[in-house]
Amino acid sequence: MSVKIFYDLMSQPARSVLMFARANKIPYTPCPIAMRKSEHQSEEYAAVNPMKKIPAMQDGEFKLTESVSITKYLHEKFDCADHWFPKSLQQRSRVNEYLDWQHFNTRPRMTKVFLAEVIFPRMTGTPADPAALAPDIQRMEETLDNLEKHFLKDKPFLCGDDISIADLFGVNEVIQVEPCGYGTIDRRPKLKAWIGRVREHVQPEIFDDVCQLIYKLAKAKQKL
Amino acid sequence: MSVKIFYDLMSQPARSVLMFARANKIPYTPCPIAMRKSEHQSEEYAAVNPMKKIPAMQDGEFKLTESVSITKYLHEKFDCADHWFPKSLQQRSRVNEYLDWQHFNTRPRMTKVFLAEVIFPRMTGTPADPAALAPDIQRMEETLDNLEKHFLKDKPFLCGDDISIADLFGVNEVIQVEPCGYGTIDRRPKLKAWIGRVREHVQPEIFDDVCQLIYKLAKAKQKL
Repeated sequence: MSVKIFYDLMSQPARSVLMFARANKIPYTPCPIAMRKSEHQSEEYAAVNPMKKIPAMQDGEFKLTESVSITKYLHEKFDCADHWFPKSLQQRSRVNEYLDWQHFNTRPRMTKVFLAEVIFPRMTGTPADPAALAPDIQRMEETLDNLEKHFLKDKPFLCGDDISIADLFGVNEVIQVEPCGYGTIDRRPKLKAWIGRVREHVQPEIFDDVCQLIYKLAKAKQKL
Repeated sequence: MSVKIFYDLMSQPARSVLMFARANKIPYTPCPIAMRKSEHQSEEYAAVNPMKKIPAMQDGEFKLTESVSITKYLHEKFDCADHWFPKSLQQRSRVNEYLDWQHFNTRPRMTKVFLAEVIFPRMTGTPADPAALAPDIQRMEETLDNLEKHFLKDKPFLCGDDISIADLFGVNEVIQVEPCGYGTIDRRPKLKAWIGRVREHVQPEIFDDVCQLIYKLAKAKQKL
């Protein structure tokens, strides 16, 4: 019986779990949960994740929530390549450091701008108010500065010379700013090159398939 | 050369790191950083943690930030008892799950009420506005409900029969509501008994010493 992964491609953490599973050829049963239809709020889904959040995982009787915990579980269970989450204490601590840091930084700060700029206008028909959004955009840019300055630095990946779980979680938050239409990533060549390296390493066809909804939203925004 | 731990007893995550180090008799050099004097904003401290957040750790040339990552590092480096962060994949995943969950729940939601109810009034001389604070109190109570219902359940500790790192991070956020003066913990006997068990396991003298500032603030509030 394969592991079940409950996801929605609109969820950044769910995309990270899926990218990891697909890049590592982990056999899993895809269980899509449509957030736009509030399927994550159903009692049926609550039996898997009582917090009603996406993603979640079920391996036999064992149910697990929280995307980072799920990815670490899959890494060990399926004995994936060391570089994703190294055994070396110092190297693994660097990966943990980013994964802890992101919760208060890349995770909420990209999301806030994305929701205000892309999702809410689609739901309400009213565009975002640039003045009200300005402080959030500033915080988003500060976070991207920190990502470049304190994590990426002059390394090919966030935590070293090879790709790790941290890069997947980083990239899936950062590409979320593309549909906002600010050209943020084009103005940051270092970040853009890093996204390209992650895409290559994950395999472009997997990366693009997992990001298909984000690409679609970015395209729709350009047409406006 | 022992590990340096940079901390302030007013920081919940720093208290968790210290409790862990002291309960496990890890030899460390205490490096107190007074947030009230903005010492964490100094350039000297930025050489340890460029993000200027507390806590941080230095082991020889290796510098590490993020409290959860630091605690996991110490656990492995000093070969601490397994129950704190179990080798068993399912058990360790449960501990990771809480430690990931807390970033959006116990961590910000207790802090927000604590700052508004205890810290800002001391800084400004103006008491908190109960009406403005009501939604934050509600979110805090919801988080405590989830903590009891989905993590603690009927177990002695958050992730099982024995204490883990998760309990330290949980307790240090939860006791922060004591000085707010709502009697929240007294109204939750299950949570209160859990705090008592964590205190016993860590050793009461260590627990009380690390929590001394919180106890002092709670006492000052009672006198108002």
